Amino acid sequence: MIVFGSTGSIGVNALKLAALKNINISALACGENIALLNEQIQIFKPKFVAIKNAKDKHLVKHDKVFIGQAGLEKILESCEDNFLLNAIVGFAGLKSTLKAKELGKKIALANKESLVVAGNFLKGAEFIPVDSEHSALKFLLEGKKDIKKLYITASGGAFRKSKIKDLQNVTPKDALKHPNWTMGTKITIDSATMVNKLFEIMEAYHLYDFKNIDALIEPKSIVHAMCEFKNGATTAYFSKADMKLAISEAIFSTHETKILDSIDFVKLSSLKFYKISLRKYPVFKLKEALLAEPNLGVIINAANEIGVENFLNHKCGFLDISSSIFKALDHFGVPKISSIEEVFEYDYKTREYLKGVR
Amino acid sequence: MIVFGSTGSIGVNALKLAALKNINISALACGENIALLNEQIQIFKPKFVAIKNAKDKHLVKHDKVFIGQAGLEKILESCEDNFLLNAIVGFAGLKSTLKAKELGKKIALANKESLVVAGNFLKGAEFIPVDSEHSALKFLLEGKKDIKKLYITASGGAFRKSKIKDLQNVTPKDALKHPNWTMGTKITIDSATMVNKLFEIMEAYHLYDFKNIDALIEPKSIVHAMCEFKNGATTAYFSKADMKLAISEAIFSTHETKILDSIDFVKLSSLKFYKISLRKYPVFKLKEALLAEPNLGVIINAANEIGVENFLNHKCGFLDISSSIFKALDHFGVPKISSIEEVFEYDYKTREYLKGVR
Repeated sequence: MIVFGSTGSIGVNALKLAALKNINISALACGENIALLNEQIQIFKPKFVAIKNAKDKHLVKHDKVFIGQAGLEKILESCEDNFLLNAIVGFAGLKSTLKAKELGKKIALANKESLVVAGNFLKGAEFIPVDSEHSALKFLLEGKKDIKKLYITASGGAFRKSKIKDLQNVTPKDALKHPNWTMGTKITIDSATMVNKLFEIMEAYHLYDFKNIDALIEPKSIVHAMCEFKNGATTAYFSKADMKLAISEAIFSTHETKILDSIDFVKLSSLKFYKISLRKYPVFKLKEALLAEPNLGVIINAANEIGVENFLNHKCGFLDISSSIFKALDHFGVPKISSIEEVFEYDYKTREYLKGVR
Repeated sequence: MIVFGSTGSIGVNALKLAALKNINISALACGENIALLNEQIQIFKPKFVAIKNAKDKHLVKHDKVFIGQAGLEKILESCEDNFLLNAIVGFAGLKSTLKAKELGKKIALANKESLVVAGNFLKGAEFIPVDSEHSALKFLLEGKKDIKKLYITASGGAFRKSKIKDLQNVTPKDALKHPNWTMGTKITIDSATMVNKLFEIMEAYHLYDFKNIDALIEPKSIVHAMCEFKNGATTAYFSKADMKLAISEAIFSTHETKILDSIDFVKLSSLKFYKISLRKYPVFKLKEALLAEPNLGVIINAANEIGVENFLNHKCGFLDISSSIFKALDHFGVPKISSIEEVFEYDYKTREYLKGVR
């Protein structure tokens, strides 16, 4: 397995699981956490390594260190390993997904932004979901027909219980307190704004070629997805809120190894499902528009990445994240995108535009 | 389709569904409800008909009327139709199941007692579950491996909320008030005593050749079964409490027709699961013994049939149903059964014994 984003939450969990099953790790790539990378190199002895910045190269305890995006693509080309776990965060992960597709590699995709911004250009790629919701959907959909509607669940994020009027003044520290999941910084903020669920709906659409998808809040995060059939039955997928299960499903070929304790239904206090409030989570208003016009994905994603970065750097408020998304959409409308190059152009233009209006 | 038990709750629902899909009904059999049978004859125009008692023959508006068990077997032999819905209640349904198996017919089995008393002699038969729990399990198990444990749910029956001390004086009328399901008399009493769930666990064992099965009370009866996988995931099957869905799954080959409204998870008030109280439902203590020694099934079933009949005829109290089961088990111990004839012998001996001790 090639692991891009090896020092992030998904990468670390994936490597723990890989060790459990003696899965060979042929390459590791990370950003700036060289200390952890060096530990991983010692344990997994990968053939190739890539890091973000040339300035850190001398710190890496490996003799084949590549740098930056070119380095990642070089690894994909050089490495005979046919299986990539792409756990890079954000738009930055797209080029690796495209390259892996071009090379016919199987892609365990934690980088959902690839599908959100360029799903139409990734048709035919062999994806394996890494998100718990999509892993759950895959399991529920296996061998089934006559699907009426799919649901994924949302925890509601850090502010599920907050009042809308209090959201103007929340801090990054507040937003990073996710009630159920231990995840990276970006996705935890995306969970608080509901951008994550908006993106996961697009991810599900691209993975399963099915548009009748909605999300419900299930505050315990033990139900991950539901599949409604035309006859009136619904199946649901339960597990403890721990990414290791979905990752194991992506990187192992069987379900025979115990990854988590099962849910104890008797000990479970009552399960409840809620509609997603469009007042508290305004970005979720974009669901139908985005399903109808997937090209909006690149604008929404770029604006969101800028917004989250600014919020984490105390340069804007929490609600400004969604405001900047709506601002960018107002400005650009529905982009006409007929080539992958235009995806990169729109990403660039959106970021430039938002720098100008701040 | 051949329908045995056509005027009971399952039979009536099955015929409604058959009409919906223009499924040909080649034979109908019932007990004593000749008026309803005549209506069914008029609508479905079956080739053959059977009733319980010769004295009613002249009332039946059909020229091919067979009588009693011999009549049912005659129909199975004469009728080219390869699909039997056996919805006869109790031990009385066993001979038809055995005959249909012998003739290689596919059997939609609502008569769970066949498996409870003679599961070991029915191996190799082609069964399709009609119980909602087993239909749900079938759907959840399709194509899956690495199963750890199966669960079916129980409503808790008419007395779920009653105090144990009040059960001594409940009447048949009280016991027949099932909170969720509209079913026949016998199964509604079996639901109140939890005998039904004990039997369904045996049914699941025989259908799916898997012994790690338990039941939990889910008072809404909208979750019907759960399947726990070795990796820590659990899938669950939800639908409204209406037998039509499971029957449609048994008699239709697809899930594409809308049978029930889907569950609205947002409108759902909180879901809860409870252990089955062995003080309130003493027969459920027999679960492990019965799974370990399936031959106990014939004793338990015969004693239960006698108990239910006496209770419904005001000849004993509600709690005497389970007492008579334990009395019979104490008397007979674990029967050694090596032929199907011995199943019938033990059924007879148990009934005779209980007549004696009353």
